[in-house]
Amino acid sequence: MEKFKVKFFPDNKEILVERGKTILSAAISLGVQINTSCGGDGVCGRCKVILKKGTIHSQPTGRISLEERRLGYYLSCLTTVESDLEIEVPAESRLDLEKISDEEAFISRLKGIFVQSEEIVEAGLENLPQDFFVHSPLATKLFLDIPKPTLEDKISDLERLYREIRKTLNIPIMQTGLSNVRRLAQLLRSSNWQVTVTLGKRNETVEIVLIEPGDTSNKNFGIAFDIGTTTISAQLVDLNTKKVLSTKAIFNKQANFGADVITRIIFAQQQDGLERLHHAVIDGMNGMIQEMIKEHNIDLNDLTCCMSAGNTTMVHLLLKIDPTFIRREPYIPAANFVPVVRGAEAGIKINPRGLLACVPGVSSYVGGDITAGILACGMSDREDLTLLIDIGTNGEIVLGNKDWLISAAASAGPAFEGSGVVSGIRATKGAIQRVGINKKNFELEFETIGNTLPQGICGSGYIDLLSELLKTNIIDKSGRINSDLDINSIRQGELGREFVVVRKEHCANNVDIVITEADIENLKRSKAAIFAATSILVKHMDFNFNEIKKIYIAGGFGTYLDMEKAIYIGLLPDLPREKFSFIGNSSLVGSREILLSAEAMEKAEEIAKKTTYFELSVDSKYMDEYMAALFLPHTDLSRFPTVKV
Amino acid sequence: MEKFKVKFFPDNKEILVERGKTILSAAISLGVQINTSCGGDGVCGRCKVILKKGTIHSQPTGRISLEERRLGYYLSCLTTVESDLEIEVPAESRLDLEKISDEEAFISRLKGIFVQSEEIVEAGLENLPQDFFVHSPLATKLFLDIPKPTLEDKISDLERLYREIRKTLNIPIMQTGLSNVRRLAQLLRSSNWQVTVTLGKRNETVEIVLIEPGDTSNKNFGIAFDIGTTTISAQLVDLNTKKVLSTKAIFNKQANFGADVITRIIFAQQQDGLERLHHAVIDGMNGMIQEMIKEHNIDLNDLTCCMSAGNTTMVHLLLKIDPTFIRREPYIPAANFVPVVRGAEAGIKINPRGLLACVPGVSSYVGGDITAGILACGMSDREDLTLLIDIGTNGEIVLGNKDWLISAAASAGPAFEGSGVVSGIRATKGAIQRVGINKKNFELEFETIGNTLPQGICGSGYIDLLSELLKTNIIDKSGRINSDLDINSIRQGELGREFVVVRKEHCANNVDIVITEADIENLKRSKAAIFAATSILVKHMDFNFNEIKKIYIAGGFGTYLDMEKAIYIGLLPDLPREKFSFIGNSSLVGSREILLSAEAMEKAEEIAKKTTYFELSVDSKYMDEYMAALFLPHTDLSRFPTVKV
Repeated sequence: MEKFKVKFFPDNKEILVERGKTILSAAISLGVQINTSCGGDGVCGRCKVILKKGTIHSQPTGRISLEERRLGYYLSCLTTVESDLEIEVPAESRLDLEKISDEEAFISRLKGIFVQSEEIVEAGLENLPQDFFVHSPLATKLFLDIPKPTLEDKISDLERLYREIRKTLNIPIMQTGLSNVRRLAQLLRSSNWQVTVTLGKRNETVEIVLIEPGDTSNKNFGIAFDIGTTTISAQLVDLNTKKVLSTKAIFNKQANFGADVITRIIFAQQQDGLERLHHAVIDGMNGMIQEMIKEHNIDLNDLTCCMSAGNTTMVHLLLKIDPTFIRREPYIPAANFVPVVRGAEAGIKINPRGLLACVPGVSSYVGGDITAGILACGMSDREDLTLLIDIGTNGEIVLGNKDWLISAAASAGPAFEGSGVVSGIRATKGAIQRVGINKKNFELEFETIGNTLPQGICGSGYIDLLSELLKTNIIDKSGRINSDLDINSIRQGELGREFVVVRKEHCANNVDIVITEADIENLKRSKAAIFAATSILVKHMDFNFNEIKKIYIAGGFGTYLDMEKAIYIGLLPDLPREKFSFIGNSSLVGSREILLSAEAMEKAEEIAKKTTYFELSVDSKYMDEYMAALFLPHTDLSRFPTVKV
Repeated sequence: MEKFKVKFFPDNKEILVERGKTILSAAISLGVQINTSCGGDGVCGRCKVILKKGTIHSQPTGRISLEERRLGYYLSCLTTVESDLEIEVPAESRLDLEKISDEEAFISRLKGIFVQSEEIVEAGLENLPQDFFVHSPLATKLFLDIPKPTLEDKISDLERLYREIRKTLNIPIMQTGLSNVRRLAQLLRSSNWQVTVTLGKRNETVEIVLIEPGDTSNKNFGIAFDIGTTTISAQLVDLNTKKVLSTKAIFNKQANFGADVITRIIFAQQQDGLERLHHAVIDGMNGMIQEMIKEHNIDLNDLTCCMSAGNTTMVHLLLKIDPTFIRREPYIPAANFVPVVRGAEAGIKINPRGLLACVPGVSSYVGGDITAGILACGMSDREDLTLLIDIGTNGEIVLGNKDWLISAAASAGPAFEGSGVVSGIRATKGAIQRVGINKKNFELEFETIGNTLPQGICGSGYIDLLSELLKTNIIDKSGRINSDLDINSIRQGELGREFVVVRKEHCANNVDIVITEADIENLKRSKAAIFAATSILVKHMDFNFNEIKKIYIAGGFGTYLDMEKAIYIGLLPDLPREKFSFIGNSSLVGSREILLSAEAMEKAEEIAKKTTYFELSVDSKYMDEYMAALFLPHTDLSRFPTVKV
């Protein structure tokens, strides 16, 4: 395949690209900023460039005025490289037209949470099904060496392309956008009939998303997202090998506008509210995408699809769909099954024509993240009664087996995600994930992820810490720090009474790691909300806890979760320990499985349709259960027979 | 349904619209010019308006800057009417960004062919199948009175909409764009759950194209086009009743850039060539649409779809697809089956989200117009050997029956369409369509369409005229005007020797109606090309003319075609007259049938796939046949035994 040098000014960067590639894709490969909002269809007219030198082939467009044409302007998405080129990107095509986005970024920086993403450590994944679903990613690349037309074989270019694809794949319904049809004749001939098509699954149909010159079939990448209220996690996946190249997480910058989904829905109704929340999430996702492809030296053009699992409100905000009615009785989302769209339509910066799909949700408060979790843990295929508890900003509970599934959601708050607690961090390097306190001298031992200097405490660390503080009577059953104890670690801090976990001289960033009484209150409320919801759901279905055969605990706690201690503080029910499995971020795992397999997507749709939703807010007993669970482990100790406090 | 008054400035026009309608659709209904190029998806940002007074609901968009927002700018496509409004359309949203289009229009006016469309008279249609196909138009409107959600029935808005549609229609695969999902929650509630959906057939899937508040199901219109090289014909159809409201035709303004498809393909390769040809055809079509809806008082928003039958080059130019390779061996189009697109994507101004479909073609030189013609005459269902001759700028010949079909195309030139001949006009009011000449005194009698004063001569008139001139020896077998005859009507004109058909004092526009020797030469070449192609095709299939049971003659000749005279001049083969049927513009009829029926579209696809194409240009005998046919009726008189010259 013939290659040409394309140099961009004023960036002064150059790149070798195949004949027939668009100038826009060359710029994207090189990281040269050019605006586009229509996905390269030649509609928006925002990607104008000036040809300084060289030969191009450009499709006609009404978006370039006669005056501009005289000056050598072209739409970079409609113009292909046919020789070495020198291209100037004019100022207007570099402007970030998404002004709100800048403003958000500015606010975020001021507030100090414009953090880089972190490599996070996943746990429990080894328990989950691997190679369970047929490998058939959301977007598949297929190299075609197409027989040239002759007087004897003269079907049209498009039908020839279809015929060649169907020699390999069984695709009854194939769709192609006009922009691809417009490029086709030139592209096939300039690439000597050797092209790579990217086939994207758009619900029940398959679209020819991209047609590229030459063989690029070995470069096909996707990203699976778990969009949580507090944390956004992502995995970069090689769609050909199914290999996970990177797993990262960041705080969801929407937290600036409210800690939970309800306050965000209210914020969305304000002037520009929806726009700002939308930009907060896509900015975060785009930042992660940029980091991951840079680290792995991947061309943005080769990122052909994304899968998102998120709660229903998060999916609405990602797609800029008004979430107002999620909050109003009878609590109806605009959609639980949202159509597959182009990433560009939602502002997600992958290949401009690349696809974005969302895992279908059950209801307004049990979203695609839970569908993904049910899929990942396999409970919808089990005979036995199984419980899934996903601990995030909302705590979602699912009970059932292969025949039926029922779900509920409780506002847990983000404490176990390391948010809203003074020294909380995500389960990343330097996070304290195990804690032990010597009963006699109150000396504290801990273990960090990666065995580095401690930076803060992650979810599993907090569970250990609470449990140890309770066991050593540093805190009492109501969570108050015992002021009678004469320990150096107990002190009056700026935020009230606190216990020093690690002094700053032993910390990575020279700040004391502490837990305050307010932190304990937050953690206690989280665990109470989750326990109460679990208890109500089990009772509602006329079971008792002992009848449950298997319990999956999901959440971004770290590599390790001590079930014994989670039971000790009353977060989990007091059942035989061998029934528990900690499966980590099962939403992210499910999202990745669904990204990699159409069969998994079908399964997810089936799960979302089959799972019923139990509305806790209209259940009179829920508040009583919650109040009773606001002790460590519980007001009613008979429910925790193995716990001796 | 609550209605509000929306007033637009500076136009100072106002309209009553339902709550929940977009400002853009109000402007379209009123004929207020607002730019849009993305079909109302909020992508292109060209439809900005300023809210002066009133309450709106607007979806967020990054296309409005913070400064503009302060000034009250909104995107009219994303903003719905929630009270009486006063709206200003700023200058930038009124600009016609399609500069080329203006320039074309200007050129056209200079050249004097920027004609208004004419009501044309269709003939032969009564012979064609009526009510043969199941009524299922390209776009169907369906009114839905949707049960409101309750705590017991709380599926999402989108799934509720799907469920309601599927109560009436069996649609396995339904698609919806993100822009409709974004509008859905507000729209359903502001319209009290009473909405009308427009369901469009996009090849094998069905798209929810539009969702409108209230019941608009009784207003659903479409336009069937026949896009010929010389003439564009159109019918406005009520999609509910199948009633044809209007039939019109104009010259195809592309004729400025070349009389036939080959010169246009060459022109398309010039700088801006494709763009100019594209705009010439869509300007013409948009002009016809505007005229027809105005005359019938139809709202542009209620024009939900178009069907186009055209030769392959015309379809490429309509969709702005590069036609270069149609002309180069082995003559391959980009597509014979083009996907259904939004009209807006091709610049066709109907409802911004309305659909545009094209009848599939057979090959580079036998296009969707012929597929439509085959469908319309029903030959693909006949047992008997049947011949279809479609006489336009190209003469296309189809031979076959229900088991096989073979086709060929000859460059006939537009003479029988009234183009390239001095007094030629289309078959409209005032066109001479029958001519008789008294053998003794050479006095001429004629009949015009509508029995009005003559304005010119249409195709059937030229056939009569040629035949009568030959019979009376005013012209000889080679087409030369007999200079020995002493008749006033024969004279030397500016363009050479000519015969005066009607003197200007008896004409509608006070210009002599004449036929020149050059006109006769043009007509002779047209008929020779068609006869030669017919003859070659019949021979190629090892038949002789006598074996043909039925012959359909198609073309825009008028209400009447005298087969006897068409045979007399050697245009049609000398066969028993009862075998011939004149079916008029069968492409337009087929286009309309396919617009009205998905079943007809399936049939058209089957025909296009089944019909083989015979390439005359590589057949050595074609030129001999053509040369032999350049006499009236033919060099070999034994082939016209009933003709006595």
